[in-house]
Amino acid sequence: MKQFLDKDFLLNTEAAKKLFHEAAEGQPIIDYHCHLSPREIYEDIRYDNITQVWLGGDHYKWRLMRSAGVSEKYITGDASDWEKFEKYAEVLGKAVGNPLYHWSHLELRRFFGYEGILNKKTAKEVWEAANAKLRSEGYSARGLIRMSNVDTICTTDDPADTLEWHEKLAADRSFPVTVLPAWRPDKAMNLEKVTYPEYIAQLEAAAGMDIATFRDLVAALHRRLDFFASRGCKLSDHALNYVVYAPAGEEEIEKIFRKRMEGDLPDAEAEAKFKYAFMKAMAAEYAERNWVMQLHYGCRRDNNPVTFRAMGPDTGFDCVDNYAPSAQTAAFLGALEEEGKLPKTILYSLNTNDNAAIDTILGCFQNDTAVGRIQHGSAWWFNDHFDGMSEQLKSLASLGYLAGFVGMLTDSRSFLSYPRHEYFRRILCRILGEWVEDGFYPEDFDTLKEIVADISYHNADRYFGFDKKQA
Amino acid sequence: MKQFLDKDFLLNTEAAKKLFHEAAEGQPIIDYHCHLSPREIYEDIRYDNITQVWLGGDHYKWRLMRSAGVSEKYITGDASDWEKFEKYAEVLGKAVGNPLYHWSHLELRRFFGYEGILNKKTAKEVWEAANAKLRSEGYSARGLIRMSNVDTICTTDDPADTLEWHEKLAADRSFPVTVLPAWRPDKAMNLEKVTYPEYIAQLEAAAGMDIATFRDLVAALHRRLDFFASRGCKLSDHALNYVVYAPAGEEEIEKIFRKRMEGDLPDAEAEAKFKYAFMKAMAAEYAERNWVMQLHYGCRRDNNPVTFRAMGPDTGFDCVDNYAPSAQTAAFLGALEEEGKLPKTILYSLNTNDNAAIDTILGCFQNDTAVGRIQHGSAWWFNDHFDGMSEQLKSLASLGYLAGFVGMLTDSRSFLSYPRHEYFRRILCRILGEWVEDGFYPEDFDTLKEIVADISYHNADRYFGFDKKQA
Amino acid sequence: MKQFLDKDFLLNTEAAKKLFHEAAEGQPIIDYHCHLSPREIYEDIRYDNITQVWLGGDHYKWRLMRSAGVSEKYITGDASDWEKFEKYAEVLGKAVGNPLYHWSHLELRRFFGYEGILNKKTAKEVWEAANAKLRSEGYSARGLIRMSNVDTICTTDDPADTLEWHEKLAADRSFPVTVLPAWRPDKAMNLEKVTYPEYIAQLEAAAGMDIATFRDLVAALHRRLDFFASRGCKLSDHALNYVVYAPAGEEEIEKIFRKRMEGDLPDAEAEAKFKYAFMKAMAAEYAERNWVMQLHYGCRRDNNPVTFRAMGPDTGFDCVDNYAPSAQTAAFLGALEEEGKLPKTILYSLNTNDNAAIDTILGCFQNDTAVGRIQHGSAWWFNDHFDGMSEQLKSLASLGYLAGFVGMLTDSRSFLSYPRHEYFRRILCRILGEWVEDGFYPEDFDTLKEIVADISYHNADRYFGFDKKQA
Repeated sequence: MKQFLDKDFLLNTEAAKKLFHEAAEGQPIIDYHCHLSPREIYEDIRYDNITQVWLGGDHYKWRLMRSAGVSEKYITGDASDWEKFEKYAEVLGKAVGNPLYHWSHLELRRFFGYEGILNKKTAKEVWEAANAKLRSEGYSARGLIRMSNVDTICTTDDPADTLEWHEKLAADRSFPVTVLPAWRPDKAMNLEKVTYPEYIAQLEAAAGMDIATFRDLVAALHRRLDFFASRGCKLSDHALNYVVYAPAGEEEIEKIFRKRMEGDLPDAEAEAKFKYAFMKAMAAEYAERNWVMQLHYGCRRDNNPVTFRAMGPDTGFDCVDNYAPSAQTAAFLGALEEEGKLPKTILYSLNTNDNAAIDTILGCFQNDTAVGRIQHGSAWWFNDHFDGMSEQLKSLASLGYLAGFVGMLTDSRSFLSYPRHEYFRRILCRILGEWVEDGFYPEDFDTLKEIVADISYHNADRYFGFDKKQA
Repeated sequence: MKQFLDKDFLLNTEAAKKLFHEAAEGQPIIDYHCHLSPREIYEDIRYDNITQVWLGGDHYKWRLMRSAGVSEKYITGDASDWEKFEKYAEVLGKAVGNPLYHWSHLELRRFFGYEGILNKKTAKEVWEAANAKLRSEGYSARGLIRMSNVDTICTTDDPADTLEWHEKLAADRSFPVTVLPAWRPDKAMNLEKVTYPEYIAQLEAAAGMDIATFRDLVAALHRRLDFFASRGCKLSDHALNYVVYAPAGEEEIEKIFRKRMEGDLPDAEAEAKFKYAFMKAMAAEYAERNWVMQLHYGCRRDNNPVTFRAMGPDTGFDCVDNYAPSAQTAAFLGALEEEGKLPKTILYSLNTNDNAAIDTILGCFQNDTAVGRIQHGSAWWFNDHFDGMSEQLKSLASLGYLAGFVGMLTDSRSFLSYPRHEYFRRILCRILGEWVEDGFYPEDFDTLKEIVADISYHNADRYFGFDKKQA
Repeated sequence: MKQFLDKDFLLNTEAAKKLFHEAAEGQPIIDYHCHLSPREIYEDIRYDNITQVWLGGDHYKWRLMRSAGVSEKYITGDASDWEKFEKYAEVLGKAVGNPLYHWSHLELRRFFGYEGILNKKTAKEVWEAANAKLRSEGYSARGLIRMSNVDTICTTDDPADTLEWHEKLAADRSFPVTVLPAWRPDKAMNLEKVTYPEYIAQLEAAAGMDIATFRDLVAALHRRLDFFASRGCKLSDHALNYVVYAPAGEEEIEKIFRKRMEGDLPDAEAEAKFKYAFMKAMAAEYAERNWVMQLHYGCRRDNNPVTFRAMGPDTGFDCVDNYAPSAQTAAFLGALEEEGKLPKTILYSLNTNDNAAIDTILGCFQNDTAVGRIQHGSAWWFNDHFDGMSEQLKSLASLGYLAGFVGMLTDSRSFLSYPRHEYFRRILCRILGEWVEDGFYPEDFDTLKEIVADISYHNADRYFGFDKKQA
């Protein structure tokens, strides 16, 4: 019987313990994709209580509470911070099997030193202990980051963004962590949105040029890409319904864009063609700059129209979309390769059924430009749990080259999410340990420790090639 | 080494044993979805031999026999009951890994006290022992139900049904089990069937009104819904190819219905639009009455035209249909929510690949109207085996709130299927026990026992709100 | 802790050890589907070094090397054989979790008696040891086959093939292994290929008749089927995108064929209709001859246009295609059954998500013409790893009749791939052993050993009914 969350949490073999404690635990974190606010980091914000820092913007926790029948009053409503915390504690206490059970307790231990269990009975005790800590030195945004042994952070930024906070952070010698922008041009692609023309106007202002054609759009983005590059950006990110392959002529794309700017919303076919043209143009730019392209797909967002009107996006009402033809993903990458414009790429699907398709697509485009030139991203969002992470790792190992994997990222909006890297590393070591224990791989700890350290840190370091802040 | 089917069958940890024996085993059964005949319950039928009660209508067993190369003569043909039983015994003896191996032996033990193994060699012995029991007191339909500690049964009933047997059962003070109808209006929806106009005529007679329009159809069903409600009905059930989202105007739906009544079969698009309109209308009625809506999908039925002609439906010739766009499921529920007409809902897909999609859809529509307002139904039909049930439970736990799950149902046509509840509870306790043993959750048996008892019984009791028969 | 690759490799229970060593290990191999060259067998070719026999045509190994960032020079390029071997050794040493790690080491042990680990450090030692063996007696194509206790081999042959090497092999009394052709008419079906008319000309020559119509095409194939049958052929094989159901009239099919022969490429709909008509015609012929029909689908080939131009097909640039509607698969088999023309069939999908759909489709068409008349083929290609094989076996067991399974095949182009049968048998015994250990099935070793021996050898022997060479 193992004790819950002791130092060997998830490490069920001697080999796993050895690998985690000797090769994984001490590695710094490269959090190459997250949704932290560079302004909040620069301003080094603090929190009055644990509800603010822990429940304030965390739609994972909100979903769980709603699933347990909690009223919205205690989630995003006007209940007091203490009442919200108490409700969460009550629900969490019974959330057996949910990753929040592990994440939340890891966070309470790593940041607040609370070694007990959070549930209805202990809620008050935890509330007080955590709040006391939050009032003490070091419990600011930067403090939480430094506590977590973070080396590099990539935020998620719009092409029209000024990157002013990144500039200030880069200039701030007092904070040794490298904080870089990442390029997320979704708004420039999603011409089906009613706000598209408005966004194009913002982009015109940011780029200092008129955007009358699709060609202009790409030129404006080119300027912004250069600007992002000058701020140290090395990777992009795209939220797609699915990876689309829908070739069309230049004329047709220009016509679709022109009609949109005149106010006509595109039909499904026009939308697909435009997005494909957009993605090809972007990918070519990334290839040129040796950036990494991240593609996130398999998600249907904002499914509840009532709550969407009340709360907007990213409030916990998204689900897996199971339509993502692997043939189109492969064809898109193939078309880029054909033109010599395929950048390093990381594929993430929210649908775990796509694991094998992704892992076999990777193999079609690997070469000596990088170890793992095309990557299968770590289990994403809803799948960021024990089974989801295990399946991603095993599928990648079976169908590809696990040792070249760039590993974990938080994808989080919270300064308290870094223990997910620990969670990931424990699962990685557990799997490797089981393989050793079971005689699937020899007891060659030199090689295994190298693999663990690489996946925990060095692979990402080599793959992205960030310019790190000088200490 | 564990002994096959001993008292700790499937319980591989001390925690699992404790949870099962102390919190699950003694709970009564709410079988909220099955295909038992209320008439057979009322008439308290008896059986001459085990073939009649066990093999008579059980297409799970038939499929297994056909897969082993057994001639139809010994399955549904003119062989004697003994010959049929002998063949089943022979095949079952080698059916390692098939859930029938577990179910069949559980049933032999729980109902007939037979502690051995059924195979070719023991067939005669089992035949005689079981038949002797069937001749003894208590081995009638009602006896088998009472032996199983069943508290509530919901059958599956057509809107045109008189519910006369339910009425008689309700009035019969000698039988303490609550037997309620459940509403299954498939025939009123499936306008692509050649028998549709004929069915509409039956419905007209039952509702006492003419059905000339779609609006009339809904009105007639409204009357029948009221009638079902007066008989204690609290839930509905739908067999869908997939959950469709295909909005159309009222006029268009009326036209599709009118053309159908004039003899024109609809094309695929018209069929989808009609079914969507039908489902929306039904769901609104359920929401109004606080009923539960069950959606079963992901099945392609009657795949073998030769055997279909010979034997008709539900004879063992169905398979998984892997087309079920999660986007349409989410959009259907979203459209209902938008109008304030989304009832409590249970989603079941025959395709286990849909687990994660379903579990993430749930989270988009949860609120404080119920714990687990939207539910992921227990592993259904073909998936009702160890791996299938385990995966459904783990997926729900990882992506939702397992503690709020309404748990198991038999979906069976047989009075001998209740041990599937035991099977489910053992698997549930096994998973929880492994989590405790592995340090994934603390040894908090108070909470764990509460969760087990809730999933075994109390959650369903609270969720459906049946009016129970007074003892 | 188990030792890597000792005699009980993968056998983690006493039951598994017993089953493997007593019932599986000694069984001969029926390799009913592979891509070996009958000419190379007849000519009994030899190899200068291990790179030639092991890395020469093995695109599994090439993919792994590319994924690890190795330059094409060391894979298919102009590096020396030793350099290529050294690179493979280096990459393999870190390929934890990849099936090549197991396969490669099994092959080194079984054929070359090398008991160590292959990695960068040992590369030279293995190179020399293996090459020395290759120079010794018995290390020819036939020697490797005989070393592997192979009883029957079915190659993969085009309808236009002369089968001359099969004829010579059949006549060669010095080689006791039965080598039979298998019928693979993909080129006669794929009318969308630019080379189609050219192929039809070849077929005309082989069949000795003009092919002006679709009816002629079928007649010509009929002649070739008779010829293949006269050479002992008992099974066919088809590579499909997915199993298509697209009925059309004879006239329409003739028109599609005529237009194609006049140079017009078909659109997607015409292609589907033609392929469906073709497959129906072929299946009917197989049914007539009591042949087995193998359908391989779920693959998208040649995804990288750059490497395709450089290297052609089957060089490691294929991936899973996740579009394969189970409804069409079921409808195709149903249409054949309706006409009394459904042959024994084996379904293989490269998409493991299709497992349950396949296993439930099987059950719709089973009868007493064979044990397991319709089969779910063993985990195919990319899925031929521990998890993939385990999942296929467990899915088949849960949803069908595992004891009737025809078991493993290599699907390989290499004379060194036979240990994959051993790998499969170990996994089979491991699963059965776990079930016994866990109390899921009684300790009835008589039955279990019968099941293991049947799946390892006897089922295939009975199912295919090959005319074996007289020793």
